[in-house]
Amino acid sequence: MFKKTIMAQNTAIPKGTRDFLPHETLRRNFIFDTIKTVFTLYGYLPIETPAMENLSTLLGKYGDEGDKLVFRILNSGDFIKNTKITEDASSAKIASEICEKGLRYDLTVPFARFVVKNQNEINFPFKRYQIQPVWRADKPQKGRYREFFQCDADVIGSDSLINEFELILVINEVFKKLNLNTTIKLNNRKILAGLIESLGESDKFSPITVTIDKIDKIGIEKTSEELKNIGVSDNAIAVLKSVFTVFSDNTSCLNYLKTILSDNPIGMKGIEETELLLKYIDNIELTTKIKVDLSLARGLNYYTGTIFEVISNDVEIGSICGGGRYDNLTEIFGLKGVSGVGISFGADRIYDVISQLGIFPEDTESVSKIMFVNFGPREESECIKLANILRQSSISSEIFPDYSKMKKQMQYADKKKVKIVAIIGEEELKNSTVTLKHMLSGNQISVKSDLIVESVRKMMI
Amino acid sequence: MFKKTIMAQNTAIPKGTRDFLPHETLRRNFIFDTIKTVFTLYGYLPIETPAMENLSTLLGKYGDEGDKLVFRILNSGDFIKNTKITEDASSAKIASEICEKGLRYDLTVPFARFVVKNQNEINFPFKRYQIQPVWRADKPQKGRYREFFQCDADVIGSDSLINEFELILVINEVFKKLNLNTTIKLNNRKILAGLIESLGESDKFSPITVTIDKIDKIGIEKTSEELKNIGVSDNAIAVLKSVFTVFSDNTSCLNYLKTILSDNPIGMKGIEETELLLKYIDNIELTTKIKVDLSLARGLNYYTGTIFEVISNDVEIGSICGGGRYDNLTEIFGLKGVSGVGISFGADRIYDVISQLGIFPEDTESVSKIMFVNFGPREESECIKLANILRQSSISSEIFPDYSKMKKQMQYADKKKVKIVAIIGEEELKNSTVTLKHMLSGNQISVKSDLIVESVRKMMI
Repeated sequence: MFKKTIMAQNTAIPKGTRDFLPHETLRRNFIFDTIKTVFTLYGYLPIETPAMENLSTLLGKYGDEGDKLVFRILNSGDFIKNTKITEDASSAKIASEICEKGLRYDLTVPFARFVVKNQNEINFPFKRYQIQPVWRADKPQKGRYREFFQCDADVIGSDSLINEFELILVINEVFKKLNLNTTIKLNNRKILAGLIESLGESDKFSPITVTIDKIDKIGIEKTSEELKNIGVSDNAIAVLKSVFTVFSDNTSCLNYLKTILSDNPIGMKGIEETELLLKYIDNIELTTKIKVDLSLARGLNYYTGTIFEVISNDVEIGSICGGGRYDNLTEIFGLKGVSGVGISFGADRIYDVISQLGIFPEDTESVSKIMFVNFGPREESECIKLANILRQSSISSEIFPDYSKMKKQMQYADKKKVKIVAIIGEEELKNSTVTLKHMLSGNQISVKSDLIVESVRKMMI
Repeated sequence: MFKKTIMAQNTAIPKGTRDFLPHETLRRNFIFDTIKTVFTLYGYLPIETPAMENLSTLLGKYGDEGDKLVFRILNSGDFIKNTKITEDASSAKIASEICEKGLRYDLTVPFARFVVKNQNEINFPFKRYQIQPVWRADKPQKGRYREFFQCDADVIGSDSLINEFELILVINEVFKKLNLNTTIKLNNRKILAGLIESLGESDKFSPITVTIDKIDKIGIEKTSEELKNIGVSDNAIAVLKSVFTVFSDNTSCLNYLKTILSDNPIGMKGIEETELLLKYIDNIELTTKIKVDLSLARGLNYYTGTIFEVISNDVEIGSICGGGRYDNLTEIFGLKGVSGVGISFGADRIYDVISQLGIFPEDTESVSKIMFVNFGPREESECIKLANILRQSSISSEIFPDYSKMKKQMQYADKKKVKIVAIIGEEELKNSTVTLKHMLSGNQISVKSDLIVESVRKMMI
């Protein structure tokens, strides 16, 4: 049909970013739509925030390493006019002079900013969800991109544990709909704080949590070594090892903790919260497993209570969903005393898990259910009429636009994974019929044109 | 519940960008979902491209003015290291040294790049849709934003007019579903080319089309003046004025054109294409009006055939959808001879029209159909059980998370525009019943708990 020529201009895209072809987009949309449907079922409301935020909103919230990974947007217009760039200025200095805006790094900080900015229009407790892309100037590698979507749900303005419980129901429902076997690992930052306090290591709370977060990747022995390296005592390491490894069920784990933390108020509070959460869960049937895992720490420092992370039971890929309770998220923007809890689904990893298991549903394969072969102007008129009738019955239909050879049209239908091909030739025109060919089985039937909706419906089953 | 304090940190967002509150997001999603549903019904497949493109992809495609409006992203890392910035360098020079990437300015150029890059994986003719945000460093003003969504559908790799026809069906269907009265203005760039050629003004084709595009805004007299100013002859202006104003119907317009363009092959080709398109349309019942309007030019230079634009019949706001046929879009990226045709819906303006008419459907008001008042732990258990049963029947439900005063809980339900409030107190617990209050009418009924699904369904009608 048209001449393919050598590429004249570069069609490359920035590293770490991706084009999504139709079959990939359909599958991604299946994941997003599933998550959205469940969020909605539980009363979460959607919001959106701008891709660009002022750098003053973003910087200082993700640590020094995070700050470096924020994409900065050059001021528009004659940006150099009122700046004093000397020839020996550093990149950081120049960047701060010529850039005021940056791209969203996650959805959490913009959400906190949103809540404070719009506090008078928000109905608290505020259950919101947000599904938008974020950008990070990270080194691209397998499974790590510079542009990716986050799918977050949070309740802010309520400290009831029923919120944690309902988020676990949301997680359970999403993965049930996606047909994935998962385990929710559960912990509480108060238990960790109590434990570390009772071991006399409170001054190392942050490095200890960062270290124990690695157990899954590097194993318990290497983790112990690292703990020793940051100055944790042998006795403390021995106790940590014992609580990280020995329990077969949640109850015995919590009972043991109670014996060693009985004198520690913060630790006991964490245990109490976890027990109450498990009591909620006990009354309901879940398809996902719930496992208290004291080695779960979650690196982010804003968590203050329950934390959770979800893994696939079938594919080893790390966390596919995570979240937790935070007490002071909006404080940096001036709104104090608002407790919240949230989760975030990792759509890219979930995509990879479903791909590896080969269990994307069949209807993410295509959009058109039926394609009309186009023989010429006379036949085409009839095709237009029937396609229109099908569309009025919400059956996705298309007409091949050109009067091409039959073989070419059939190849197009085949590649597009259309379920049914409709053929209207001279014979069919004369008899007011249409020939319907089921592409998968190859079966072919001839039906009266005015029965096309019912016939197509029957063939689609 | 929590103390509101004075804002400590600035929560401003970059000018020209917007936060979308839940009710706004729900309404925007209603528009996006409607457009998406119709695209799908006609066999268009979704794709997505990255927010960032290499500047080499973007620059030089939108004219000098456009180039200035592309947001540039600062190279990450030590971007200054290998550049030679002298103290007298201009902004443009520096930008080209320290920025390689820019934000997507529209969906058309990235689509052309996508088609060439992925040509071996694409099934031609390629019917694709794409709904994504774009960014322009334009001066923000009422109705003009620096971040906004475009909703595009294109068919590429087929020059059949059935594609134009089907896009008109798509437009018709979208606005029918959105309940808007619209008119599609139709023209053909070949007619304009022929007309301007026959008047001996071909050398001024581009400025003439840009000028006549303004008729809607500045009127025919001012347009004539401007045409005179750019050097168009009085005779040519008189002819242009005659074709822009006098016709009451499409047929007489085209017939008149035939008399004045009978010797002009390109003009006659344009007339022929338009007649064929109108013939397609004549066979189908549309709710939108179709009007051939020779003053429609569409500024973009890549259009080569049919062009269209849609206006609301009820609200004066300018074009809410537009598009046209292009023959050489992918040529800049090295793929020649691929004809295509596409349309783009302006979601922001469509939002404004529906808002002004006050006709957003009721179900864009809220997500939760029912909220359970929460009196305490014992009642809560029953609420959880019933909410779960409702959710299994796809009825969006929520439980107020805190044991707050009844009044506060009812206010929350009222603000969230929940349809039904469910009350389970001591009495209800004892009798295994639930009290359902219809929020709009205030009616209240008591039903057996195991009949909750049927009862709620009945009350929602």
